[in-house]
Amino acid sequence: MSTTLQRLLSPRSVAVIGASNDPTKRGYQAIRTLLADGFPGAIYPIHPRATEILGLQAHRTVLDVEGDVDLALVCTPAGTVPDVLRQCGTKQVSGAVILAGGFSESGDAGRRLEQEALEVARAHGIRLVGPNTSGIFNLHARLNLVGFSNVEPGGLGIVSQSGNVALALVTEGQVNGHVGFSAYIGVGNQADLEFSDYLEYLGEDEPTKVPVLYVEGFKDGRRFLDVARRVTQRKPVVVYKSGRSAAGRRAARSHTGALAGSYEMTVGVLEQAGVTVVRQSDDILPVAEAMSLLPLPPFSGVAVLADGGGHATIATDALIEAGLALVPLRGETRRALSTLLPPAASLDNPVDVAGGTDANPGVFADCARVLLADPAVGALLIVGLFGGYGLRFAESLAPVEEETADRLAALVQQVGKPIVLQSLYAPLKTAALARLRSRGVPTYGSIETAVSCLAAVVHYARATRRNAMRADAGATPGAQPAARAILDRSRTAGRHSLLEHEARALLRAYGIDVPPDALVRTSDELQGVAVDFGDRPLVMKIVSKDILHKSDVCGVRLDLVGEPALRAAFDDIVRSARACVPDAEIEGVLVCPEARKGVEVIIGVSRDPAFGPVMMFGLGGTFVEVLGDVVFRTLPLSEADVEDMLDELKAKDVLAGARGAKPVGRRALVDLMLKISTVALAHPEIVEIDLNPVIAYGDECVVVDARMITA
Amino acid sequence: MSTTLQRLLSPRSVAVIGASNDPTKRGYQAIRTLLADGFPGAIYPIHPRATEILGLQAHRTVLDVEGDVDLALVCTPAGTVPDVLRQCGTKQVSGAVILAGGFSESGDAGRRLEQEALEVARAHGIRLVGPNTSGIFNLHARLNLVGFSNVEPGGLGIVSQSGNVALALVTEGQVNGHVGFSAYIGVGNQADLEFSDYLEYLGEDEPTKVPVLYVEGFKDGRRFLDVARRVTQRKPVVVYKSGRSAAGRRAARSHTGALAGSYEMTVGVLEQAGVTVVRQSDDILPVAEAMSLLPLPPFSGVAVLADGGGHATIATDALIEAGLALVPLRGETRRALSTLLPPAASLDNPVDVAGGTDANPGVFADCARVLLADPAVGALLIVGLFGGYGLRFAESLAPVEEETADRLAALVQQVGKPIVLQSLYAPLKTAALARLRSRGVPTYGSIETAVSCLAAVVHYARATRRNAMRADAGATPGAQPAARAILDRSRTAGRHSLLEHEARALLRAYGIDVPPDALVRTSDELQGVAVDFGDRPLVMKIVSKDILHKSDVCGVRLDLVGEPALRAAFDDIVRSARACVPDAEIEGVLVCPEARKGVEVIIGVSRDPAFGPVMMFGLGGTFVEVLGDVVFRTLPLSEADVEDMLDELKAKDVLAGARGAKPVGRRALVDLMLKISTVALAHPEIVEIDLNPVIAYGDECVVVDARMITA
Repeated sequence: MSTTLQRLLSPRSVAVIGASNDPTKRGYQAIRTLLADGFPGAIYPIHPRATEILGLQAHRTVLDVEGDVDLALVCTPAGTVPDVLRQCGTKQVSGAVILAGGFSESGDAGRRLEQEALEVARAHGIRLVGPNTSGIFNLHARLNLVGFSNVEPGGLGIVSQSGNVALALVTEGQVNGHVGFSAYIGVGNQADLEFSDYLEYLGEDEPTKVPVLYVEGFKDGRRFLDVARRVTQRKPVVVYKSGRSAAGRRAARSHTGALAGSYEMTVGVLEQAGVTVVRQSDDILPVAEAMSLLPLPPFSGVAVLADGGGHATIATDALIEAGLALVPLRGETRRALSTLLPPAASLDNPVDVAGGTDANPGVFADCARVLLADPAVGALLIVGLFGGYGLRFAESLAPVEEETADRLAALVQQVGKPIVLQSLYAPLKTAALARLRSRGVPTYGSIETAVSCLAAVVHYARATRRNAMRADAGATPGAQPAARAILDRSRTAGRHSLLEHEARALLRAYGIDVPPDALVRTSDELQGVAVDFGDRPLVMKIVSKDILHKSDVCGVRLDLVGEPALRAAFDDIVRSARACVPDAEIEGVLVCPEARKGVEVIIGVSRDPAFGPVMMFGLGGTFVEVLGDVVFRTLPLSEADVEDMLDELKAKDVLAGARGAKPVGRRALVDLMLKISTVALAHPEIVEIDLNPVIAYGDECVVVDARMITA
Repeated sequence: MSTTLQRLLSPRSVAVIGASNDPTKRGYQAIRTLLADGFPGAIYPIHPRATEILGLQAHRTVLDVEGDVDLALVCTPAGTVPDVLRQCGTKQVSGAVILAGGFSESGDAGRRLEQEALEVARAHGIRLVGPNTSGIFNLHARLNLVGFSNVEPGGLGIVSQSGNVALALVTEGQVNGHVGFSAYIGVGNQADLEFSDYLEYLGEDEPTKVPVLYVEGFKDGRRFLDVARRVTQRKPVVVYKSGRSAAGRRAARSHTGALAGSYEMTVGVLEQAGVTVVRQSDDILPVAEAMSLLPLPPFSGVAVLADGGGHATIATDALIEAGLALVPLRGETRRALSTLLPPAASLDNPVDVAGGTDANPGVFADCARVLLADPAVGALLIVGLFGGYGLRFAESLAPVEEETADRLAALVQQVGKPIVLQSLYAPLKTAALARLRSRGVPTYGSIETAVSCLAAVVHYARATRRNAMRADAGATPGAQPAARAILDRSRTAGRHSLLEHEARALLRAYGIDVPPDALVRTSDELQGVAVDFGDRPLVMKIVSKDILHKSDVCGVRLDLVGEPALRAAFDDIVRSARACVPDAEIEGVLVCPEARKGVEVIIGVSRDPAFGPVMMFGLGGTFVEVLGDVVFRTLPLSEADVEDMLDELKAKDVLAGARGAKPVGRRALVDLMLKISTVALAHPEIVEIDLNPVIAYGDECVVVDARMITA
């Protein structure tokens, strides 16, 4: 794949199909730009009648070109595209960038046209960018087939589902003057090449330090995650995913299936793959810049160095909200700082110099050295006036600041821990700040932006450590014969879901702790059942393939003690089920012991159309249904993934024993989730698993209700 | 108060005490600045030995000045301040700005010194700014007693507890070139004058369009809210409150008392008073600017107009997260848009012009006119490329954009509905964008910033409408004699909390629906009790002034039916209470009917040291304890306040009937909360009320447990 994209993005020759002499047309502009930028390869204008365009010889069709054509830029209307591609195929063109809209984004006719174009391309081995793309550029190949001009060269490679969002990033880089770009690809409708292909290419593209993606939707999300997991071991990948609010509405609904495809699910699986997900569009460029510059913090503790209490307080609030920890400083660090700073200084983290830098901003570098030598400190945030001492206090301090900038930048290289600096003078671009930036220390005017950047590198470093330890997915786990037999019987019976006792038996086949149960078909079979389960209160539930939501038909009874109660409940349950669903095929009633009180959790697996099997985990009841407090990971899961899932719940304190309750045994929960992952992978025909609730205790987890839907 | 501050901020004469010939000293810089700015009043340098400073005659003490002195700028060290103030007092100086640190912020000795200075000032009627302040400026009086130079004049009046945060705002205004300032006051330690005084002054200060406050803590928060409620009826007030993260930790704890003083409480009561609370420091200036420019939207619905799907999607996500509603457009609006835009355009909200402005950006103004004519649309957000068409498409479009800018600005004036514009060309400050800004339409480069600004005006408009309808607090409600008698008996008995049956009786005295109960002192008294309550299951609870947390001593039993069960429970409860708290004075056991299942809520009142009586409202159980999902308002409450409280819960869907439950009757809940407000106001000696839980049903609310702590 990468070789093909290599040829597309660094072609030796480009045919511009639909070339034009009209300066308002893309078929003119593209050629003008290629010429102006000094594109080193051949440029072939294709036009049905013209003989010359912008001084270049024009050809009637691509077939009339004498040399080889690596890439075709197709500027003609949608309807012409299949024929154009046929000609390209005959000419053995490697790839085509199709600008026209009017394909799958615009209804059924367009969808059919796109399918036709794709089939032609596949038949001839042409790879497609688009259709409905704004184009591509690759500055290092002097190839610019998109209308963005004055692009600053640099290390960010953009892949975007919106041309304007990419244009916004390029314009922002042009204005701030310190962020540049390697390549741009507008994905358009992703008829053929898609995000995963482009990411794979940028992962290997030397000039690209950080791939940056604006994504509205993935096609093959599963493959994207695989590629992302590999690429993020080598370089950071920054993604802005739009569509939060629609997802927010969906998240209000409850069960696993409905929550799949949500924004939060996508973020969960992307972060699992090591991707840096940015939640504000105005953070995209600063975060990508910081990640392209900074070393990875060896551990996650952060220190703050401030010249003023206000900024220190704002920074602390923002850091904690971003999930970062301001670590306590060791005694040695505090002692060393006390020799550098006046008595009024705060030697706690956040460190406030309390005027200790007014006469000599070089003290910042001294303090930074001390702080980064602290073994608990993985990264440093400096906030306040640095870079403006020459303006604020005395001109003579400006050269001191420049020298301090050099020392700070050298320190980062030397100790391999990142520094991010916020200065209220950043918009004035003073010499000291420009020096810091050019030597690799990102500086921002906004505290919140600086914190977002620092949080991004800290979280990325943590994710790469986690994913580096992750064993490869390896072979699909083997299916247990007992489980396979249950599924076979269900399929033979023409059912699309397991009956509850079957689902429970299937889980037991994988060593999962499910309480004993008895399927009772007539009330006479109840004789002895109460005795078998001892004196514990029992639960009865209707069992029918036609009744998925048992409580909707009054099909569940709790707290039953003694045979008479069981018999009465049996009759009630069957009667009301028959009343509610007259045609239901009733297998019987399942009897099982009632679970002790504990912490209710939900574990679900669904097959996302884009990402494949995904596990959802949340706390039971209103936590899921009202607050949508759930986390997602794709399967297979590593232990670290499951630990992250437990830690990412907003209401995670419930697991740790909030309200005087005993903490939940994490080990048992982790084991259960890993086993459920195995079940889902071993049986792809199970399209949905819903364990709701599972009750978690100090030392064990008990599956109380299990539903499984099959293909 | 305002007259005094008027004199302080527009003095006819200023004495600089601690004047200096050393250019690095504040006592030099201040005089230099006053001279450079052309301060029209008299300047008196005070120096023990110098005869002349910066060409002005120096005096040994302020007493040696011949003319009147309105204001003293005190630049001398902390220890000298009481004596300096004594001299100022003798001289009848109106106010003093005290720069020195070393007062209450630095330990006990400093606290005593500050108290001494305050007493001297009070004795002489001098009002103090500071101590430990960075100073003040009032550009319209050409008075600048702080080291900020090149301040852009304009409509924002800053009051800040951090000099550097103010400096950051001034520097940001200086760089962006379109936000200016009227006045600045560094509050320092607020020994005398405090936030409420300064806000009152700025509320009346003509040049100040928007007071902007950076607050770490309030002293007299109650008074601040009163002032803010009045000022926000005339002009917007923007507050950034720091200290979120410490508050976040506190919020993890549960009961009313612990949650008081939190960040979220402060935000709740500020918003109740109509204050615009900004949560990101980098939003302070843009939000204040937008509020100084824009008309108030007559209603809250928002429309989005975009030239590109990416920006439309990002804007929609951000608007919904900011709590704004993208309203559906009426048929007439959609028809009118369809005549302006190409067929591919999306006429739904968000409106995407789909290339319909490429050839003529004037179409933006046409569409804006149509959208703002829609009766559901109160405000408009335009996102995308506007202002850059001349750069992006054709130079000839630049003048069209300028003319369009004029039309958009005129439209805002004409229809009285705000437009906020986001343009990716904003950092390039093109002529069209500069024109928009100068004519009162704020424009930003960041979508998130634009959304924050629009959300601020929409929420402010809503709050002013709500507060305008609010009747004045009026007289304190009268106490019910029966309630007063209960409190008197408790006080006479030397108790600091009401026994539960007393608290229940007190609530009944205000017409609050509390289920019947019986206090039983011996198990023999139980005879007949079961019968009195009918056949319903009963609850028993220990009653003792020494046992506040009844369940900690196994002092609560549920689900009791029949006299034998009651007798057994009585004995158990008394025995275990005696075992746990041997010295407890046990009054007896309270018997009452068990409440039906419903939605548990918590209603609490505490007396905040800064804000006085504050009501907390939340959902019971883990919602409060784990998620801290609670809202706060100061008393007295208006009905609109209570409605807002119900609507601001994150888990508010529980009240509306999530998970198939019946919705809670809002009327009954609102009534109960208003009555609790009355109880708290009528009896200031009740320092804490904790109704936990109250159970809410479709038509009523039942107080299940009531605790009241008295002073």
